Amino acid sequence: MLKGNAIVGQSGGPTTAINATLAGVIKGAFESEAIDIIYGAHNGVEGMLDGRITNLNEVIKSEMDFKLLASTPAAALGSCRRKLPKMGEDDAVYEKLFDFFKANNIHYFFYIGGNDSMDTVAKVSAYAEAHNYEIKVMGVPKTIDNDVVGTDHTPGYGSASKYIATSMQEILRDCAVYTVKAVTIVEIMGRDAGWLTVAAGLPRIINGIGPDYIYLPERAFDIDKFIEDVKTALEKHPNVVIAVSEGLRDADGKYVGESAQSGATDVFGHKYLSGTGKSLELIVKEKIGCKVRSIELNLLQRCAAHCASKTDIEESLMVGAAAVKNATEGISGKMMCFTRTSSNPYTVEATYADIEKIANQVREVPAEFINEAGNNVTDECLEYIKPLISGESEVFWKDGLPSHFAINYLG
Amino acid sequence: MLKGNAIVGQSGGPTTAINATLAGVIKGAFESEAIDIIYGAHNGVEGMLDGRITNLNEVIKSEMDFKLLASTPAAALGSCRRKLPKMGEDDAVYEKLFDFFKANNIHYFFYIGGNDSMDTVAKVSAYAEAHNYEIKVMGVPKTIDNDVVGTDHTPGYGSASKYIATSMQEILRDCAVYTVKAVTIVEIMGRDAGWLTVAAGLPRIINGIGPDYIYLPERAFDIDKFIEDVKTALEKHPNVVIAVSEGLRDADGKYVGESAQSGATDVFGHKYLSGTGKSLELIVKEKIGCKVRSIELNLLQRCAAHCASKTDIEESLMVGAAAVKNATEGISGKMMCFTRTSSNPYTVEATYADIEKIANQVREVPAEFINEAGNNVTDECLEYIKPLISGESEVFWKDGLPSHFAINYLG
Repeated sequence: MLKGNAIVGQSGGPTTAINATLAGVIKGAFESEAIDIIYGAHNGVEGMLDGRITNLNEVIKSEMDFKLLASTPAAALGSCRRKLPKMGEDDAVYEKLFDFFKANNIHYFFYIGGNDSMDTVAKVSAYAEAHNYEIKVMGVPKTIDNDVVGTDHTPGYGSASKYIATSMQEILRDCAVYTVKAVTIVEIMGRDAGWLTVAAGLPRIINGIGPDYIYLPERAFDIDKFIEDVKTALEKHPNVVIAVSEGLRDADGKYVGESAQSGATDVFGHKYLSGTGKSLELIVKEKIGCKVRSIELNLLQRCAAHCASKTDIEESLMVGAAAVKNATEGISGKMMCFTRTSSNPYTVEATYADIEKIANQVREVPAEFINEAGNNVTDECLEYIKPLISGESEVFWKDGLPSHFAINYLG
Repeated sequence: MLKGNAIVGQSGGPTTAINATLAGVIKGAFESEAIDIIYGAHNGVEGMLDGRITNLNEVIKSEMDFKLLASTPAAALGSCRRKLPKMGEDDAVYEKLFDFFKANNIHYFFYIGGNDSMDTVAKVSAYAEAHNYEIKVMGVPKTIDNDVVGTDHTPGYGSASKYIATSMQEILRDCAVYTVKAVTIVEIMGRDAGWLTVAAGLPRIINGIGPDYIYLPERAFDIDKFIEDVKTALEKHPNVVIAVSEGLRDADGKYVGESAQSGATDVFGHKYLSGTGKSLELIVKEKIGCKVRSIELNLLQRCAAHCASKTDIEESLMVGAAAVKNATEGISGKMMCFTRTSSNPYTVEATYADIEKIANQVREVPAEFINEAGNNVTDECLEYIKPLISGESEVFWKDGLPSHFAINYLG
């Protein structure tokens, strides 16, 4: 068994569950005989390159610290968007990184992040192999977008979905109180895949209420058909609620914001693109003329830890610990995955996959999860994602607000 | 003791706590010997005028029904924005209303709503007195805005504040992960008073983190000073977070959206006013040029029942029941209020006040609650509102989502 110290970093956009995975990695390292010290790198690989690291053995002191960390949203170690150069193009970066590894006796490298982060994992692994430096390198995915291939779903997706479904249900209640015709458009994150927008449909199979329509980027968006859909719904009841992905595009691949807004200018006279929801709001106002508003769920989708899925947080912890276990058993250069072993009852196992088979691909919502008209999702789809929002992760309330766990760089 | 049936209605914008007050009124009626049947009017006074009422004794069957109702956001009976005419102007409306009362033996009238609803309470009370119809009429305020005079705070404000403070804390965590200079502007509800925006400051006294600045409509907003404030903050740290009220106005009383956006046009070439947050986003982009985004907390502020304040929900129940008790003891034509009897420990009592002394006034955030520079709130202010977000109201989760209680009109 390879013995030495470990380093862990976080990279890419924050999620509600990325600190649970961090807690899982740290816990795994604490419990492993192979790992002496586990360091946290602040702002991912940037902290490794400029020496901003923290000895996590001195920071996480109790079971309560683990629990608090796992319930804290966003990357407690900070994040970065740095992509490493191709090997051979700028080896100075790699030399600096590996000098840092040697100086700190680091032989385990754990990186929690999105597609770019898995690219870093693959490159660090390849460079180590080419230069005979023994280090086990494991990637753990995180993204609310759920668009990574090779895994049943991504850590972070379940909590984002729980927040979206809960908020959608509350918006539906709010919008139902008046008798005046009104359209409410809820814009949900997702540039390339509609997985998060799908979650807006969950109240339908759980509580029998749902938005009238759900539009995903997987289907070309047709504004005329959309207006017809809205008119049809308004004939049935006065309060129409619609969920849309931010990444809606027309048949030519143009984002709704672009294709609808050629004439819009901002306060300084610059060409101005508003979001998908706002664009559709203006179109409904112009073409139908009823009361209309748009709501962007925005950042809260990825950081609303007060409404996290217990399943997601527990799985995120589990997959972090499994990454350490795999690495100490000799696995390297892989990305951790979830394999769904049963749907009823729902069970999942932590597995791993080759990064090359995964990188630079987007897993879209499959065709059978979308209705024929392309304006809603199927029950099959909702049943598939339902277990991911199951259970409520513990929140440590104090004086009315959640307590969080900060890991500050102290120099 | 006056005996007969009662009617209860909800009016104005929904809140997270308005159904808790409804549950309190129903419970009070069930327990009162004076009241036989309590009817719910759908869409407030509109349902009384067109006969859409439900016998609530047949709908609320158990303690669990009360609990579910109290944890359901938005008006379960539906709402309206109807204002009654001045007495003598269109008495046909009053005649119809009082015919309805007589036909259904209604001698108790409870109305849960905002300023317009209290106006309805005053008018119904005055008409009854002038026409010798014996009915006890009580108003119970609800508004997330907390801008009603005569009461320490309004039912609904505590839950909205808890959601805003919790979300702000999560946004602060999310925004802290990168090292690149960025400004995040969070727009919070409140046209005339800054009470909701104030709540964004609560994480500061509870967990030691808070937005850099908080701008309220109580102080004239100066764009140049704002840009200087932002620059000052960016010199100290890269992630600047700012809370603003939607109702920010300049010294001439013009909304920020109006004064900043004379040149903006929408996709159809129409003059276009975006919200305060979006306007400030465009201004920061133009004048400072760093990464900037704006977030509107939007509808969730008034309907996020999954994050309701236990104090608020319990007080809302309590004040609803107290309205019934007062009415059956002979009080009429009043609005229920909260009187804070002690700040440490926090205790509150249900009282009542004359509507004429309250109507058409806005209670602003007092000067001593705002710092001298006018760009933040004082600790004294935050300590004052802190007890209102205390405790977490029970949520009845099922399959990952909250269960709600619907009262549908069945005809």
